[in-house]
Amino acid sequence: MPIYKIAVLPGDGIGKEVMPEAIKVLDTVGHLCGIRFDYTHFDWSCETWLKTGQMMPEDGMCRLAQNDAILLGAVGYPGVPDHLSLWGLLLKIRREFDQYVNLRPVRLLPGIPCPLANKKPGDVDFWIVRENVEGEYSQVGGRFAEGTEAEGVVQSAVFTKFGTDRILRYAFELSRKLGRPHVTSATKSNGLYHSMPYWDERFAAIGAEYLDVRMDQYHIDILAARFVMSPERFDVVVGSNLFGDILSDLGPGMTGTIAVAPSANINPEKKYPSMFEPVHGSAPDIFGQNIANPIGQIWAASMMLDHLGEAEAAALILKAMTDVLSTQSAPRTPDMGGLAGTSDVGSAIAKALTS
Amino acid sequence: MPIYKIAVLPGDGIGKEVMPEAIKVLDTVGHLCGIRFDYTHFDWSCETWLKTGQMMPEDGMCRLAQNDAILLGAVGYPGVPDHLSLWGLLLKIRREFDQYVNLRPVRLLPGIPCPLANKKPGDVDFWIVRENVEGEYSQVGGRFAEGTEAEGVVQSAVFTKFGTDRILRYAFELSRKLGRPHVTSATKSNGLYHSMPYWDERFAAIGAEYLDVRMDQYHIDILAARFVMSPERFDVVVGSNLFGDILSDLGPGMTGTIAVAPSANINPEKKYPSMFEPVHGSAPDIFGQNIANPIGQIWAASMMLDHLGEAEAAALILKAMTDVLSTQSAPRTPDMGGLAGTSDVGSAIAKALTS
Ligand SMILES: CC(C)[C@H](C(=O)O)[C@@H](O)C(=O)O
Ligand SMILES: CC(C)[C@H](C(=O)O)[C@@H](O)C(=O)O
Repeated sequence: MPIYKIAVLPGDGIGKEVMPEAIKVLDTVGHLCGIRFDYTHFDWSCETWLKTGQMMPEDGMCRLAQNDAILLGAVGYPGVPDHLSLWGLLLKIRREFDQYVNLRPVRLLPGIPCPLANKKPGDVDFWIVRENVEGEYSQVGGRFAEGTEAEGVVQSAVFTKFGTDRILRYAFELSRKLGRPHVTSATKSNGLYHSMPYWDERFAAIGAEYLDVRMDQYHIDILAARFVMSPERFDVVVGSNLFGDILSDLGPGMTGTIAVAPSANINPEKKYPSMFEPVHGSAPDIFGQNIANPIGQIWAASMMLDHLGEAEAAALILKAMTDVLSTQSAPRTPDMGGLAGTSDVGSAIAKALTS
Repeated sequence: MPIYKIAVLPGDGIGKEVMPEAIKVLDTVGHLCGIRFDYTHFDWSCETWLKTGQMMPEDGMCRLAQNDAILLGAVGYPGVPDHLSLWGLLLKIRREFDQYVNLRPVRLLPGIPCPLANKKPGDVDFWIVRENVEGEYSQVGGRFAEGTEAEGVVQSAVFTKFGTDRILRYAFELSRKLGRPHVTSATKSNGLYHSMPYWDERFAAIGAEYLDVRMDQYHIDILAARFVMSPERFDVVVGSNLFGDILSDLGPGMTGTIAVAPSANINPEKKYPSMFEPVHGSAPDIFGQNIANPIGQIWAASMMLDHLGEAEAAALILKAMTDVLSTQSAPRTPDMGGLAGTSDVGSAIAKALTS
């Protein structure tokens, strides 16, 4: 029986409420498929920061490294500046474990109220591949002329050939693997003078290695509009760290799945553990009420199983999740128009697995 | 009788087709309201670049400066790298004429198919104030280690206190003027380590001068999602050059008005001429077929009149435009489900003015 070592990091806010539901579902599917999980729980969070000035202890990364995968809840809480909490935990792990791929599905699911008109499940179904460790997210830069009228700040984005090429290649490979050989690149080469013309150049160069894959590209402004206007046209969309971030919230937003969508931070070479989290944040405004939707965390657990090579177990979770979503009488959290609690939804999905 | 000197710059692609319609409507409204326009036509475009290597002649800015306002079509055409054409014309004018405000309405209009479910005209109606001359759009940076495996590119965004404060102040003032004292700031201070924490800091500082104005802020990723999920909640949204750019295409996209929405590049101090253009681009794919929708260009002309102090004439155009849009039998271009030509729509709006 395979045993996977899982680092469990609920983090802040509703991360703490949705995580137990994912564990519940993982344990159930493990039982069904003969897989065991060996969890190590880490309570690192903004509370840690308030106590110690750090988001994790000195040996934090070393302790995480001993696991096969990381399941993360959410990071960030009022009282700790966002850039300090995020760069001290989420972004730190992405970078130090070279999780250079962020992979997120945009999928219209049954039973979910969708803000778009005239769309049904199946109409919208594509993947966003986001560069996850460089680009616009950078600590290069700083403040100048502080305290004077000339004050200002420089923020430098750094794109390397190494980092750009490998994410583009991942997108092309994925589109082949999915049997949907079509990659759309997010750019802004008309406005961003240095970075995006370079991105376009590399997209053309890497694309030339994949003659069977159709390529197109849009500036990020019109691409955001086209997501909403004609989401059917996408298969795999590849973008920089910032553009991928924006598109992969917009996608779930427009399909009504912000609380449902997962986010996989992948080190494809498996040199380091990969990390799986819901797209949603720590939602301080609803924390503590047992109303957070646990489905994003559960779907993240399914993506984790996929990454670990347990495709069957991953698919079972996805099916149980979809079954519950399409059952009108099944429990739903308030964000989906229901009155159920976080744990009711988790239990319903666990139960659907065994029925 | 007031005479306004207008620089007419159709630019590229469908810019050349929609511009005559705006002139037609301006002339009609001028006749009605006793205003005269003294047009100077400039044929600067990507063709100029192909011939001369420049988008405009040496004395171009000087010739534009002699006008009260600039009416622009669209810039960019295959064969000329986008960043060269744009930085040589559109972005050059914005910067050298210190048009630091880009103002764009997001408005659900009657008679326009809208991608959002269950929304009717009036439900979505807000303004985007975009910083228009600094920030992420910058020529600071360049390539390093060119031709080696270590190759890459640095793109630096520069935010000044001067530039940040004045755009924030403009947004607060506008929200007051509209009688909708609520400003939403687009940020990304959790990921962009230097620039956006500074933006937030200035937002808080300037906001403190406007105690009657309600403030909120969202990270750009979730803000894009919320545009689609709950567009009713916005009044005035303020963003950096890049975030404003993205949001002000997404807004028109989600209200079905990409071809209809205008964009005003304003120098509020009137030290230099301001510039008015449609949100859409040069659309090479449909150029030359007389099917481009001229309404964006016409609405831009209305915003120009507003800026020139001709509020009545501006309102008349907007009313004629809305009348035509809400008349089922009125001509419509193919993007709006009709079969009419560009000039039919322009003529219908001109006619509606006089009826
Ligand atoms: C063409 C491009 C440079 C421009 C911009 O990004 O500013 C356009 O998208 C706009 O919004 O006016
Ligand atoms: C919390 C934040 C830093 C993060 C990001 O921007 O990467 C989040 O929005 C995400 O997409 O995972």
